[in-house]
Amino acid sequence: MSKYGMQAIFTAKTGQRDVLANILLEAAAGLQSIKDCELYIVSVPETDPNAVWVTEVWSSSEAHKASLSLEETKAAIQRAKPLIDGIEAVELKPLGGKGIIS
Amino acid sequence: MSKYGMQAIFTAKTGQRDVLANILLEAAAGLQSIKDCELYIVSVPETDPNAVWVTEVWSSSEAHKASLSLEETKAAIQRAKPLIDGIEAVELKPLGGKGIIS
Repeated sequence: MSKYGMQAIFTAKTGQRDVLANILLEAAAGLQSIKDCELYIVSVPETDPNAVWVTEVWSSSEAHKASLSLEETKAAIQRAKPLIDGIEAVELKPLGGKGIIS
Repeated sequence: MSKYGMQAIFTAKTGQRDVLANILLEAAAGLQSIKDCELYIVSVPETDPNAVWVTEVWSSSEAHKASLSLEETKAAIQRAKPLIDGIEAVELKPLGGKGIIS
């Protein structure tokens, strides 16, 4: 079973980036106890004041899908939705490297 | 001092993606002992047979810059260069999350 990676780029409504980033950081905190979630990193690019990047690695795509039905995840999505103008998401297959379980 | 993130997308010459990915995985192995390198993950997108994504997080941009002068890094760059058609790179400021040192 191969790992599942996701690079999501959220475009926040003007002036809402930091509020959105905090909601996503809270979601990351909630995932600390979820073994199948290896990475959930919230970053911002220097070049776009409205963008928030979330980099995820999961043990499998099934584990990622299952996480979407967690009450905490659903609550975070509801809180974040009104702050979001757009989402780009690229699915990735992590091959390995430093910082994920090999 | 804030962490430094980089999302690089390499476009390999046709048919060279796997060779390029292996060189980058070797580079990642060489970074295991570099404390300032928190993440160096090599992934491939399902949608582009020529792309290799490298997701990096460093303790600082200075640490990232310093790594570029390591002999191993320079050797990997020389080996990879002939296999590469293009590189896109986005600098990121990691705010936190699961999988990096908070």
